[in-house]
Amino acid sequence: MKRKKIVTIGGGTGSFMLLSGLKKYPVDLSAIVSMADDGGSTGILRDELGVLPPGDVRQCLVALSDSSDILRKLINYRFDNGGLKGHNFGNLLLSALEKINGSFAKGVEDAAEILDVKGEVIPVSENQMRLHIRLKNGKILAGENHLDHNQGIRSSGIEKVFLDPEVRAYKKAVDRIKSADFIVIGPGDLYGSIIPNFLVGGFSEAVRKSRAKVIFNCNLTNKKGQTGNFFLEDYVSEIEKHIGKGRMDFVTFNKKKLPAKLIEKYEQIEGVGSIVKIRDEKSPRSYRIVSADILQENEVKKAKGDNISKTRSFIRHNSEKLARVLSVVFEMGEYESIIKEII
Amino acid sequence: MKRKKIVTIGGGTGSFMLLSGLKKYPVDLSAIVSMADDGGSTGILRDELGVLPPGDVRQCLVALSDSSDILRKLINYRFDNGGLKGHNFGNLLLSALEKINGSFAKGVEDAAEILDVKGEVIPVSENQMRLHIRLKNGKILAGENHLDHNQGIRSSGIEKVFLDPEVRAYKKAVDRIKSADFIVIGPGDLYGSIIPNFLVGGFSEAVRKSRAKVIFNCNLTNKKGQTGNFFLEDYVSEIEKHIGKGRMDFVTFNKKKLPAKLIEKYEQIEGVGSIVKIRDEKSPRSYRIVSADILQENEVKKAKGDNISKTRSFIRHNSEKLARVLSVVFEMGEYESIIKEII
Repeated sequence: MKRKKIVTIGGGTGSFMLLSGLKKYPVDLSAIVSMADDGGSTGILRDELGVLPPGDVRQCLVALSDSSDILRKLINYRFDNGGLKGHNFGNLLLSALEKINGSFAKGVEDAAEILDVKGEVIPVSENQMRLHIRLKNGKILAGENHLDHNQGIRSSGIEKVFLDPEVRAYKKAVDRIKSADFIVIGPGDLYGSIIPNFLVGGFSEAVRKSRAKVIFNCNLTNKKGQTGNFFLEDYVSEIEKHIGKGRMDFVTFNKKKLPAKLIEKYEQIEGVGSIVKIRDEKSPRSYRIVSADILQENEVKKAKGDNISKTRSFIRHNSEKLARVLSVVFEMGEYESIIKEII
Repeated sequence: MKRKKIVTIGGGTGSFMLLSGLKKYPVDLSAIVSMADDGGSTGILRDELGVLPPGDVRQCLVALSDSSDILRKLINYRFDNGGLKGHNFGNLLLSALEKINGSFAKGVEDAAEILDVKGEVIPVSENQMRLHIRLKNGKILAGENHLDHNQGIRSSGIEKVFLDPEVRAYKKAVDRIKSADFIVIGPGDLYGSIIPNFLVGGFSEAVRKSRAKVIFNCNLTNKKGQTGNFFLEDYVSEIEKHIGKGRMDFVTFNKKKLPAKLIEKYEQIEGVGSIVKIRDEKSPRSYRIVSADILQENEVKKAKGDNISKTRSFIRHNSEKLARVLSVVFEMGEYESIIKEII
């Protein structure tokens, strides 16, 4: 049987979780990664070396790597002294490979070889992406990193995000979308990791035209000022603004009840209603909701020295559970098309 | 036939050249490397991260690496912008692995695995070595890096070098010396790369007691203030001060005549008599001189962005020629011991 071609779209920790699970299944994986990240070690490297943002790509490479434990530890190592303080070793690796090759995408390919990566990691664009955030109060913020740290966003809320200047999609990313069997979107920050991919010239169009089924791993939690009070339906419609209304085929949704204490803890930070629900289970919709227990049972601990994770959700998907559910959806998709053909 | 155990002692570019050639022969190679380097990227990492000096080890690892071209390029890559400027990627790799392992020697082993190294690279000590240089005018300089840049050394000359504080030899280095068939010293800066190894507690004694034959690859050129006006015999007697008079078995010497223009160019920098000669070919000696063409014919070009190489000799050994000559010496040594046994 031919292996299914699965293309994931995202960036950040969500992609790491997703790919770590999916790589155990006999599918061909291509991870398309946003180039909008500009915070932390990645932001410094962008500014000082003029390289593309390595952070999200690194996480995907590590997720798909079959290399030795020490190599994976090395790639995630963060220097904590002197002029190198805060720099992640894997980011330095990718930046050096970009410089040596004169191409980020080629550098990522080399890194994939060094790390014995099963599958592909593909930047959505070979150009520097600069995400801009327009708030509802009219103010414009330049830089994806504002999403995690800006009080204005939390109080005013986001109207839209856009890229300035506009950039074109990397050809390989478009090619993989064209030939995909399934496109798996998220999980990840909607405006920080998901939408930026669809803002890249030619990318949304490719998804629209692709024969692939589209799956969205709906977020578990909302972020104040960004997705505050969002229901599952709101996430889908935000994404369908880019890929076309009715384009979504499946949406995974966590049906496992969260402990009350955890909900309380989370709502203290992100406001009441910050756990994502379905608005109306009974109303008709153009996609199927796949409800399942895909929750990480143990509260996610923050990694030592990881400053970024302060802003990350501590309610997360379980990598293995989600992958198992997706593997079932991949089969469902296949039978559906057979049924259609017979009818 | 059992593979011969060859242990090299040195550091810096000389070891790189030596090992690059020797690795093509069917011998077991262990490269023992001085930990006295404290200049450049290495010096900054020592100061800021408190790690052992990675630079010389990196060069030996690259020389012995069987890994892909891109991995070797990566290890030698030097950042040229921002806060990372001047840092060598391979040095960062070794420093990160030292931090992860809590041990430099263990980090070097991991790096050797990552780089698919044929043979071993072993630090002479697991302690920070701080080389001190006492000049003939009584002044003391702290730091190996002074050897390349200090005008005082060039005018006054070196009386001796010593370590402060004293450090002990790494057990594995001593073990390899004990079981070696041949110990190959140099080439390399006498006071910067060779002697520092013998200053480490327990190391010279191990060489003295080892049953191995000792070979010294005599320097081609002298350095003003350091080895100014040295003849081959002077190099040998400086080393024998540490390993014992009469301990040397073979000394390789370049018999290929240098172009007059090159000699002139070199003498302008390092003074008249800066090409090493044999003082007295006919006087009896306790070692054999192996005279051969071991010269690099093309003048050595400086690598772009390599500030250190300004101070490196542009008259160098040819890696393949030297390795071929040494492989003959390894055989000579064997036949000699057979003859002794028969008699």
